[in-house]
Amino acid sequence: MRGLMQEQPLLISTLIAHAAAAHPHREIVSRSPEGLVRTSYGAIEQRARRMSTVLAHLGIQPGDRVATLAWNDHRHMELYFGVSCMGAVLHTINPRLFAEQVEYIVNHAQDQYIFFSPNFAPLLEQLAPKLPSVKGFIAMCPRAQMPEANLPMLLCYEDLLAAEPETHPWPHFDENSAAALCYTSGTTGEPKGVLYSHRSTVLHSFAACAVDGLGVSGADTALLVVPMFHVNAWGMPYAGAMCGAKLVLPGPQLDGKSIYELLRDERVTLALGVPTVWLMLFRHVDEQALQPRTELSLRRCIIGGSATPRSMLEKFEQDFGCQAIPAWGMTEMSPLGTVCKLLPRHESLPREERRRIQLKQGRGVFGVAMKIVDEDGDSLPHDGASAGLLKVRGPWIVSSYYGREGEQVLDADGWFDTGDVATIDADGFMQITDRAKDVIKSGGEWISSIDLENAAMGHPAVAEAAVIGLPHPKWQERPLLVVVRKAGAALDRKEMLDFLASRVAKWWCPDDVAFVESLPHTATGKLQKLALRKQFADYRFTE
Amino acid sequence: MRGLMQEQPLLISTLIAHAAAAHPHREIVSRSPEGLVRTSYGAIEQRARRMSTVLAHLGIQPGDRVATLAWNDHRHMELYFGVSCMGAVLHTINPRLFAEQVEYIVNHAQDQYIFFSPNFAPLLEQLAPKLPSVKGFIAMCPRAQMPEANLPMLLCYEDLLAAEPETHPWPHFDENSAAALCYTSGTTGEPKGVLYSHRSTVLHSFAACAVDGLGVSGADTALLVVPMFHVNAWGMPYAGAMCGAKLVLPGPQLDGKSIYELLRDERVTLALGVPTVWLMLFRHVDEQALQPRTELSLRRCIIGGSATPRSMLEKFEQDFGCQAIPAWGMTEMSPLGTVCKLLPRHESLPREERRRIQLKQGRGVFGVAMKIVDEDGDSLPHDGASAGLLKVRGPWIVSSYYGREGEQVLDADGWFDTGDVATIDADGFMQITDRAKDVIKSGGEWISSIDLENAAMGHPAVAEAAVIGLPHPKWQERPLLVVVRKAGAALDRKEMLDFLASRVAKWWCPDDVAFVESLPHTATGKLQKLALRKQFADYRFTE
Repeated sequence: MRGLMQEQPLLISTLIAHAAAAHPHREIVSRSPEGLVRTSYGAIEQRARRMSTVLAHLGIQPGDRVATLAWNDHRHMELYFGVSCMGAVLHTINPRLFAEQVEYIVNHAQDQYIFFSPNFAPLLEQLAPKLPSVKGFIAMCPRAQMPEANLPMLLCYEDLLAAEPETHPWPHFDENSAAALCYTSGTTGEPKGVLYSHRSTVLHSFAACAVDGLGVSGADTALLVVPMFHVNAWGMPYAGAMCGAKLVLPGPQLDGKSIYELLRDERVTLALGVPTVWLMLFRHVDEQALQPRTELSLRRCIIGGSATPRSMLEKFEQDFGCQAIPAWGMTEMSPLGTVCKLLPRHESLPREERRRIQLKQGRGVFGVAMKIVDEDGDSLPHDGASAGLLKVRGPWIVSSYYGREGEQVLDADGWFDTGDVATIDADGFMQITDRAKDVIKSGGEWISSIDLENAAMGHPAVAEAAVIGLPHPKWQERPLLVVVRKAGAALDRKEMLDFLASRVAKWWCPDDVAFVESLPHTATGKLQKLALRKQFADYRFTE
Repeated sequence: MRGLMQEQPLLISTLIAHAAAAHPHREIVSRSPEGLVRTSYGAIEQRARRMSTVLAHLGIQPGDRVATLAWNDHRHMELYFGVSCMGAVLHTINPRLFAEQVEYIVNHAQDQYIFFSPNFAPLLEQLAPKLPSVKGFIAMCPRAQMPEANLPMLLCYEDLLAAEPETHPWPHFDENSAAALCYTSGTTGEPKGVLYSHRSTVLHSFAACAVDGLGVSGADTALLVVPMFHVNAWGMPYAGAMCGAKLVLPGPQLDGKSIYELLRDERVTLALGVPTVWLMLFRHVDEQALQPRTELSLRRCIIGGSATPRSMLEKFEQDFGCQAIPAWGMTEMSPLGTVCKLLPRHESLPREERRRIQLKQGRGVFGVAMKIVDEDGDSLPHDGASAGLLKVRGPWIVSSYYGREGEQVLDADGWFDTGDVATIDADGFMQITDRAKDVIKSGGEWISSIDLENAAMGHPAVAEAAVIGLPHPKWQERPLLVVVRKAGAALDRKEMLDFLASRVAKWWCPDDVAFVESLPHTATGKLQKLALRKQFADYRFTE
């Protein structure tokens, strides 16, 4: 028997239509090419509808991919709705990828048009000849800011809009239709495309607006430092429309001074971004001896992308009077998975214990089921100690990658393997202890390379440390600690191991220590364990 | 093109499964027949699964209706999940209805079994012979609390569960399947059944957990004074499972003392209920000279069911240190429609203006589209002044009534007429100004009977006032004010009209005043305007 409720598909158009009806005057402030632009949900909706008409006239059909290579600004937001609401697919490209990767994904996605922020013109000039599917390049600016660029079919966003008074009658269609596409910058192999649907995007927005999700509300002014080219800025453009938060979009200026000024001048209450940006902000605050606690209105800062350093959490608390909230997710998860906020019963815990919980990845939001399993796929208890492969399932989690639908991405029960090793405690707080490929499997037990590295880094003579698992005749694998000494510091194998002996379980202690001059890193500063493992491929432990 | 996200139906089973996985130990505290019972989401899930097996053995099939006639307690919560998650339909019956209405709806719904709180045994004894579809009556208590009742096939809830160790493997099915049924106690005609689906219930739970919805979170301890037999206790049993709020279920004891003790002893942070209950609570607090501000942890009180009196809002603020939050909805809306929380820009308003906004019905949550229309169906502006028929649309709003699917409930564009007249302001705050059937249509303009009554009540000699529209040869309708004078007070027509002249628009002023000894009321104290109109049916205005 069917229920007798109205049949309303969960479409992205319902988000912006709600915004235009319920809070049309709520501001969207952005650092756009022509300067600081103040617009509103009502105006964004109208211009997005006109942009849909422009796209239709350019020949865009439902399902076609339309790309953006752009900073966070109001035009990017208009495209979020203008492209998806007409039934086309918004493909947000990460301009920080290597040029060859951008080339690969544009060709893989078969993008028809690329909308771009003017300062990405040089990158596109270089790539344009290699992008046969692209029929035109549209600079996201008024005529006055048009870049000097040698690009075929170069168009001006504002000229196109100015010539189009008609708003598009966004149609109703199946809520499972594709809405947006984002490629992961996988460390191995080619980038893989995650194809979000209208349904997954609306459901994810609900999770973002939940108190225990990102907690965004109509009372918030939210600064989106997290880029709109990366997993839809954690879904905030959609969630903002859902609840009527004022949004502040910083454009390309992510330096400490620019961010601080936006926080102050727009009276931002909620900020979202990765640790790197906040470190730049802190440096500016310290250098200028600013008083964020009194000058700013910042109440909450959501930190994702990589683990939140403890010092960051404390700086936000003490100097900003702001709650730092670690969150965790993946491109494959739209991205929201867990958010770390303390529960009332934690309030009475000693400070150190509280901190330990605050730095976990957090509790899973409804919609993201999590389990941890051992190597046989058997579920492990949620006791905060048992570490296993973290698997997730839910309506905004990937089922397969775009253009690779034949490949099996989920296990037989429909779970997606995050590639992380984690614990989950009795209150549901998840903590990532390692990447699955980095964990050391010793005699049937797992040793966290991250925990060992953190322990080793505690020694005053250690500049950097990495732990890798290497084959061992008896234990399958055992940890090798690779250390870079601080300039001029003395440290030998015995002292290092003695130091660790008092800090980690005996059977976790590395079997050996190798001292090196430097460790291999990626362009963005991430440790390359794959390269390190190659470097030590010939190393052998003795029993 | 379809998105490539996991296909996960929005089923009520996913709510309690999430609770059991993510926050199994979070408490559910209830005043059950055997006393105060402490249980948890984990235990509720296990017992609900066993109850599904019990029901299957009793012959319940997907789509069958299983009724409850019960107070808020842990067993009622188990039935919320045990009945719906196996695919059957939970029919919650309001025991405050007249016995004939209960008889009508049980027969209309063709309920197979009725689960009941022991003290409703006398009502069921009286009705049982007239309920041919009912195969058995199950008392929601342990053996020791079984009522002495002359009921055919009388069963004991705990005995049934004790005999059933097997948990039901809740199936996956279409998310649009019926999950729960609730009849409106319509003031005219027979009660009408609203049939909620799994999808509508899960989507509604998202809205409840939104900051701008009921704002319930895992950090809350929520007291559900609003009954589980009335629109699913505003969806709180589902929303609690979604976020992991501790729930406090007060059973039948809704007196001021009992409620106060629960608020205090369970450290309740969020309470939900109708104004009547809070008045009883206030009386107890005043009589006992209690100090709620220091003794309680109450932070927010959601008030619905009827308009929040200003004095209640102020009492909660001043004496409880608690935010009073008016909310509005309907059985036909699952019920959540609007919630009234001030926006940041209201903070700087003068106190009186702020109060005026605080007493509106509030902003529509995402999922409830609202419009106001004139008599021709044309939309009116959202200017806070234009009053029109309030229509709503969304995925948790009724499309037709159970067993009356042939009747047209929605207009041609799919909107449901709430029967209210309302304004909507530029920030999206909706305010009900009248019931559509009570509004006075004068010369193409509308006059709010409620506003006129409130103005008249401001006169010190007026005990009660009612305004009805009566036919007028020139203006179609004009208002007649009907007044009950306070005992011993003197007041005549001219003084009354002069008093109003300075308080309402000139063309709103009643054409005449009738003085009566008393006004007709329903059993629950509501003014019966229908009866009043009959009483003045022969009255004629002169031009």
